[in-house]
Amino acid sequence: MSNTLPLIHLSPNDVVRLVHRIGLPQCIAGVAERIEQDFLRWSEFDKSARVASHSPDGVVELMPIADATQFAFKYVNGHPKNTTLGLPTVMAFGVLADVATGAPIMLSELTLTTAIRTAAMSSLAARTLARPGCRTMALIGNGAQSEFQAMAFRHLLNIQSIRLYDVDKAATNKLLSNLEGFGLDLVVCNSAAEAALGADIITTVTADKTNATIISPEMVTPGVHINAVGGDCPGKTELHRGVLEMGKVFVEYEPQSRIEGDIQQMAADFPVTELWRVLTGHVPARHSASQITIFDSVGFALEDYSALTFLYEKARSYGFGRDLALIPALNDPKNLFGALELASIAPEPSLVD
Amino acid sequence: MSNTLPLIHLSPNDVVRLVHRIGLPQCIAGVAERIEQDFLRWSEFDKSARVASHSPDGVVELMPIADATQFAFKYVNGHPKNTTLGLPTVMAFGVLADVATGAPIMLSELTLTTAIRTAAMSSLAARTLARPGCRTMALIGNGAQSEFQAMAFRHLLNIQSIRLYDVDKAATNKLLSNLEGFGLDLVVCNSAAEAALGADIITTVTADKTNATIISPEMVTPGVHINAVGGDCPGKTELHRGVLEMGKVFVEYEPQSRIEGDIQQMAADFPVTELWRVLTGHVPARHSASQITIFDSVGFALEDYSALTFLYEKARSYGFGRDLALIPALNDPKNLFGALELASIAPEPSLVD
Repeated sequence: MSNTLPLIHLSPNDVVRLVHRIGLPQCIAGVAERIEQDFLRWSEFDKSARVASHSPDGVVELMPIADATQFAFKYVNGHPKNTTLGLPTVMAFGVLADVATGAPIMLSELTLTTAIRTAAMSSLAARTLARPGCRTMALIGNGAQSEFQAMAFRHLLNIQSIRLYDVDKAATNKLLSNLEGFGLDLVVCNSAAEAALGADIITTVTADKTNATIISPEMVTPGVHINAVGGDCPGKTELHRGVLEMGKVFVEYEPQSRIEGDIQQMAADFPVTELWRVLTGHVPARHSASQITIFDSVGFALEDYSALTFLYEKARSYGFGRDLALIPALNDPKNLFGALELASIAPEPSLVD
Repeated sequence: MSNTLPLIHLSPNDVVRLVHRIGLPQCIAGVAERIEQDFLRWSEFDKSARVASHSPDGVVELMPIADATQFAFKYVNGHPKNTTLGLPTVMAFGVLADVATGAPIMLSELTLTTAIRTAAMSSLAARTLARPGCRTMALIGNGAQSEFQAMAFRHLLNIQSIRLYDVDKAATNKLLSNLEGFGLDLVVCNSAAEAALGADIITTVTADKTNATIISPEMVTPGVHINAVGGDCPGKTELHRGVLEMGKVFVEYEPQSRIEGDIQQMAADFPVTELWRVLTGHVPARHSASQITIFDSVGFALEDYSALTFLYEKARSYGFGRDLALIPALNDPKNLFGALELASIAPEPSLVD
């Protein structure tokens, strides 16, 4: 048996090559555009909350979703202590498959891509929800995802100045070094409250798996948009519940966000609006420039579907990736046993004769 | 960015090589032994019913499971019409991962392996439930999985004679050709009822996604063990409900079997026994040689966990498989952005400047 069905493998290096080929802002914008298009056809997707397997040090999740033609899923972990072992906190890969036959068509790295799609989702939500003319963002949590958020808001919302804070000064220094020369005014702050001062948008992207209070009500001024990215797991929140009560809360997919989002702190009937309703024009984003808007983001499978279909299209048009031998191609599809080619070896004596 | 974390890729050909190296009966026996060991520590596993995405032509399922050290999942489809397109009805792959860090450690083909593990599960259940001295088996449904069932029962239960039936005579002829020279007395029958005549064990492994009646009460004689493999999906059953009422019904994991097994036809309180209770000695298999036992098998994630850990051990000891570039190895795990090496390319102008 030597043949296998066509299945493209995209490595992390393929995604790096793609970013070099078309540019990081263009990748983020391309994924954001796809997410928007896919959110506009929300009802066409077979949606479910992700399946999580929790352990003392972290979580492993499977995130499946499908429309009538494509099935996608992501494997993703979250292990905050991994960095002490030299491993990323979040590692991910995903698969795109054909609904008509069930055959997988692409296996891709999603560790880098998850950061791109999360930044794309955040900026799409902010473009939809924030008041016009935002130029300053607080970026609280300067870890693995922070630069992607900065780049997304720089290029998709025209954010000019970013106020940085992290409990770990080394993380902030890493961000400063990474984003030097990218045209952003970067201001280092000594606390989350200081970072929030005068910010039009507050982005929280912290990693600790605890019920933290990164943002409390006194930090929140009229008209601000809060992009809460890091509270995305049971027992892992970033916003004081008083903050959630100050504004209008938007989520990706309500059943999952009730479990994982900052709104896990609130009663089951605490009012939230799914973002697709704003994108489709069913619900207005905000009634005034002084209203506070909160995007309680957790990361939904549809965003990975959008990212995977974006990667698949780019891989095909640029010729990135290679064949992966994973599914056997059978001469006779009803003859799986024949694929073992046992005729070429002598039958074994029975184990119980 | 060029380095990736260690992750073994096992192709279908690697599994064929393994079967040639140690023998198919030994593979089936090895997986059956692992399944038994894993079922004996049933309570250590974080179990859930699989997540299914149904479409008009089939289903795609994700089957996750974990103990304290390893997480495993299988991707598997079921598309009965695939064979008309030259594709297998069932295609599968799986991943083994480290619970402590969330890092995947092996990606393996599971199309061939699923047939091996299903045969291993069936023979383990029959060895546990069937009366001693069974020598004749009816094998109804002679498709892709049938030879694996035949080999498993030949070598693990000492079945000598197999009575074959399939609505498609070509399927039976394929089985006859594949199993020539393997020491089995193969008897072709003209109906399921004829195949069941005098059989000690009745195995049903048909593929149609319908509520079929492959076995009806008049075919079932005292003392028989029924190994019902093909009824494994909502709307896909093989046994007349009267058959289920004739004997003691055993299942893998009750919450999943209530949805997918032949017992989907029965009331929610229809009595069933999870097989692990018999293996651990909590519940007797049967009270007499004349009792009828029914293994209403649907395929549970734990069996794939057992198969994946078996493959992982063999791959390492025989040096099968190769590295797969899927998860980036970062010089600084907190610096995902740095892996993009954007410093080597000129910053792009902003998309919104």
